[in-house]
Amino acid sequence: MCREEGVDVLFAPSPEAMYPSGFQTAVTAHAVSQRWEGTHRPTHFGGVATVVTKLLNVVRPHVAFFGQKDYQQVVVVQRLVADLNVGTLIVSCPTVRDPDGLAMSSRNVYLTTAQRRAAPILYEALRAGETAILKGGTDGGRIRRTMLMKLAEEPLVQVDYMSVCDPASLEPLARVIGKVVLLGAIRLGPVRLIDNLLVRPKTKGQRAKSR
Amino acid sequence: MCREEGVDVLFAPSPEAMYPSGFQTAVTAHAVSQRWEGTHRPTHFGGVATVVTKLLNVVRPHVAFFGQKDYQQVVVVQRLVADLNVGTLIVSCPTVRDPDGLAMSSRNVYLTTAQRRAAPILYEALRAGETAILKGGTDGGRIRRTMLMKLAEEPLVQVDYMSVCDPASLEPLARVIGKVVLLGAIRLGPVRLIDNLLVRPKTKGQRAKSR
Repeated sequence: MCREEGVDVLFAPSPEAMYPSGFQTAVTAHAVSQRWEGTHRPTHFGGVATVVTKLLNVVRPHVAFFGQKDYQQVVVVQRLVADLNVGTLIVSCPTVRDPDGLAMSSRNVYLTTAQRRAAPILYEALRAGETAILKGGTDGGRIRRTMLMKLAEEPLVQVDYMSVCDPASLEPLARVIGKVVLLGAIRLGPVRLIDNLLVRPKTKGQRAKSR
Repeated sequence: MCREEGVDVLFAPSPEAMYPSGFQTAVTAHAVSQRWEGTHRPTHFGGVATVVTKLLNVVRPHVAFFGQKDYQQVVVVQRLVADLNVGTLIVSCPTVRDPDGLAMSSRNVYLTTAQRRAAPILYEALRAGETAILKGGTDGGRIRRTMLMKLAEEPLVQVDYMSVCDPASLEPLARVIGKVVLLGAIRLGPVRLIDNLLVRPKTKGQRAKSR
């Protein structure tokens, strides 16, 4: 796959090379690791932060690219890079979507036909939240309910969380003032899907113009 | 002081530069941080590991020097440098001592005249342990008791710990086979002193020759 994509160098160290006997050091970005995905996978972001620190220290790249689909992971990595003075620019790459809006993920193959048909509702719910904000909505709780109501249209869906958050701290916002991230996680049977949207509210002038 | 010593460059960042608002990442070398000094200062080595990771990432030195007197600190730093692939050689510098053997420390000024007179007993106890090993002693418990008996000669001393340890993992050893570190911590009134000695047992041939 890398060859087809024109990759020049692939660095894929073995677990033994990364975690030799006696290994015991952990990197933790405390606050941003504990919310949302962190409540479902308590040790996940600790592992991510540690291995990313190691990889960046070995390779010392000027720039490293991560997918926006795992938004919280991007925030954890940006946090540790800033906090530990790693000196790499972390770039978030736009989420790649199927034509119906479903974010591409290796997990999508586990969806049954019916679940796959229902899956785009997550993106639609996020888009409904975005529309509410672009129309001038600033009440975090109300925007969240708009997203939940959209999801309620789909009986196969179980909601893990839908939230309106500060894009850097990931704290839920009661009031939308500047840029926000809408985070969502749902389950379709045993398959768990996550997605997100970054939204910047329009200024009053912008809203008047677009009417 | 740096000028007198011929230092070319001093990098002494402010706390605000090192820990700006939102800072939340921690580096922890779990096992080696929890023993000995770690039981007395539970958060100490976490702070050390985090700030040393930051400083090494900012400066990216080929070599960094640490004093052997804080032996456990050297081990924590060597551990994190290896585990996080920092790429700096950590060099341990010999402990500097007063003529009577007391390891130099900024804390020594807090000793009363009587306490200062008693203080070299820590080094003497470590030397007694060393002598026992060089004479062929291999029973960790016995070597430890030899050191404690030496300390018992000095009524002003309260012992925090005396131990015979693996020099990398800092685990206490029942049996001395290769190189070991003797670690000690005592209190003289309110002043807490630490010291250590690295000891390599002589081979049978070496012991025969020295008789």
